[in-house]
Amino acid sequence: MERYLVISSDGHAGLPPERYREYLEPKYRPIFDEHVAAEIAARAEAEKFMLISDFNTRWRAENWDGLTGAWDSSARNKVLDRDGVVAEVLFTDGITERNSPPFGADLGMRPRGANPELQWAGARAHNRWLAEFCEEAPLRRIGVALVPAFWDIEENLKEIRWASDRGLKSVMLPVLVEGYDSYNHPKYDPMWELIEDLGLVVNFHSGPAPDYDRESPGWVGVYVCEFTFWMTRPLFAMIFGGVFDRFPRLKVQLTEAGGDFWWPWMMEMMDYRARPKKGSAKMGDHASSLSLTPSEFFRRNVWVASSSQMDHTRGDDYRKIGVDRIMWGTDYPHPEGTWPNTSQQMIGSLRGLSGDELDAVLGLNAAKLYDLDLPALNALAARIGPLKSAFDDQAA
Amino acid sequence: MERYLVISSDGHAGLPPERYREYLEPKYRPIFDEHVAAEIAARAEAEKFMLISDFNTRWRAENWDGLTGAWDSSARNKVLDRDGVVAEVLFTDGITERNSPPFGADLGMRPRGANPELQWAGARAHNRWLAEFCEEAPLRRIGVALVPAFWDIEENLKEIRWASDRGLKSVMLPVLVEGYDSYNHPKYDPMWELIEDLGLVVNFHSGPAPDYDRESPGWVGVYVCEFTFWMTRPLFAMIFGGVFDRFPRLKVQLTEAGGDFWWPWMMEMMDYRARPKKGSAKMGDHASSLSLTPSEFFRRNVWVASSSQMDHTRGDDYRKIGVDRIMWGTDYPHPEGTWPNTSQQMIGSLRGLSGDELDAVLGLNAAKLYDLDLPALNALAARIGPLKSAFDDQAA
Repeated sequence: MERYLVISSDGHAGLPPERYREYLEPKYRPIFDEHVAAEIAARAEAEKFMLISDFNTRWRAENWDGLTGAWDSSARNKVLDRDGVVAEVLFTDGITERNSPPFGADLGMRPRGANPELQWAGARAHNRWLAEFCEEAPLRRIGVALVPAFWDIEENLKEIRWASDRGLKSVMLPVLVEGYDSYNHPKYDPMWELIEDLGLVVNFHSGPAPDYDRESPGWVGVYVCEFTFWMTRPLFAMIFGGVFDRFPRLKVQLTEAGGDFWWPWMMEMMDYRARPKKGSAKMGDHASSLSLTPSEFFRRNVWVASSSQMDHTRGDDYRKIGVDRIMWGTDYPHPEGTWPNTSQQMIGSLRGLSGDELDAVLGLNAAKLYDLDLPALNALAARIGPLKSAFDDQAA
Repeated sequence: MERYLVISSDGHAGLPPERYREYLEPKYRPIFDEHVAAEIAARAEAEKFMLISDFNTRWRAENWDGLTGAWDSSARNKVLDRDGVVAEVLFTDGITERNSPPFGADLGMRPRGANPELQWAGARAHNRWLAEFCEEAPLRRIGVALVPAFWDIEENLKEIRWASDRGLKSVMLPVLVEGYDSYNHPKYDPMWELIEDLGLVVNFHSGPAPDYDRESPGWVGVYVCEFTFWMTRPLFAMIFGGVFDRFPRLKVQLTEAGGDFWWPWMMEMMDYRARPKKGSAKMGDHASSLSLTPSEFFRRNVWVASSSQMDHTRGDDYRKIGVDRIMWGTDYPHPEGTWPNTSQQMIGSLRGLSGDELDAVLGLNAAKLYDLDLPALNALAARIGPLKSAFDDQAA
């Protein structure tokens, strides 16, 4: 191959808010009609606090012609072709671009303040649309269904079966567990069992956090120091709760919390904390029943989607996690992502990895995790993928 | 000196619960009488879940004659003499030993579920008792006043002035900020100003955490992976909120969250997150107004009380934090502490540090932080301190 096979492990897709109406069950449309304007206004308002308006406004002005790829199938394919990406893992959208499902079924899927029935309705509307969107280009689109998992296990099971039947390959679960049954609760066992049996991938995506007081100085600094932690809590629960012992074939993707220092640190810390020692003896025996160390579970059951945060100075960290577990992503259509200059940024940020490592990180790991049609993707990559020679030039 | 000067940066002291009655303002005694039996029962019940009963029962049976040092002045001095410790920083007690003030004014000082007026009453009862206890041996006892800081700034200021007048040298603030104004809120500025002016030390002590479902397997493992994070949140808020820029002489002690990997990691992470980069540009400029990098603030304004968790394999981590900022502690009377075998454990856990580094970590850093009477402490150390030659033998 002259070109790399590139699969983005972190893409976002969603309709403009008002267009979710037709994907909602009819009985939820009146309440949607009541709420949609307020939801759109709330997102615009949130942006004022959370983001630099200038930054986003300029980003949108410069890139408007590509941003319709968030929901338009042929625009999406053009974006990918130009970016050199053959396939993508597709999450719902978050706050940066405003194409989110209603009723709190967005990337945060926050339980607090949500109405469970409505959040389910919003999640299902997105899942229905996403299934159609993926069917329009099944080779290239790896759909992640939303499952607001805290409310009702039977609903979870129903939706997971539906998602699998419709060709979606992953389920995203909420990250913020505080105040709800975390993922070490035995009630989730039927869910893990079904996900494992269907060969789906569990996804957690960074971003959600408890409320910060936006009037207090420095809150953004606090947020950027804490966001990876909020996403790590479900992993602690799954590992120490023995989930990977009971469901050893379960596959978890952790998205956009750094392929850098964070996961090597967490692997080291979990192993350290799991070892019996005087300081925690009074806490009881909390890990000796596990068949593997936490970092061994991590290396067996977890994949890390580093997304656009990859940084070539962190090559050694990637190797600590396992280069076979790190997956590149563009984060399209978010402004912090690599689009529309993916090839260039990729080259800069992956300097120092060998050719085999690049093959793995850019595409093969994701192809294996999601059991994709590699020959067909390779054929496409041979046409649109970034030239390997471009990386050689850069490295030299 | 033939012997080391040893100051424990982490000791606990408190009355048996029923004896806090006489230190409460009289108007709170009837409600105390109503609640005290239930509080004692709740702590015994908590222990069943949280701790191995056997471990604690055996610990108490073996050490009962020394445990009265938690509140008995002459017993305390004997414990210290035998342990080779000349002085101690004195926190309230936590859950391990049950000698805690009433109304949620214990080591956790949890705001959630607390009645602010009663929590203040409990905190003040403890502070009154502690002031007396410290007055009985002012050279050796460094008292930490409880300040449940979320409720009312004027009350905070009043109590901080009172504590300073009564010779207490530090104030402990609550760690769990979720749902309350965190320490980057400008409303705390008068409090920081007063603390700085009075030369007191701010203390945060690990332990408090949100509720975990004790029926779910692995919750202890989750807790031991997360407890350092809960205590780090106030630090993120203070650093990114610019507190150390506005109050550059403020001194913060972080107690029992590991002198090991945790703080070097947090220093590295805060610096990394503070640097402007594409991934966080959409979040706005969140750190460029700070005059120092987060790790520089840390090295200037923060001291780390590693307590009994010190581990000789972590010498390099101590040096990353700064050996002039690491303080040994015994954690008496907790079973995970080093008492009653402090000298032996000290030697094992501090192997690899040089003589000068040992001087600093064992006592001089704390003496400097709390502005103690060094000649008088040295005179006492010359009599009771651990022999330096014992460390040499061990190292050889």
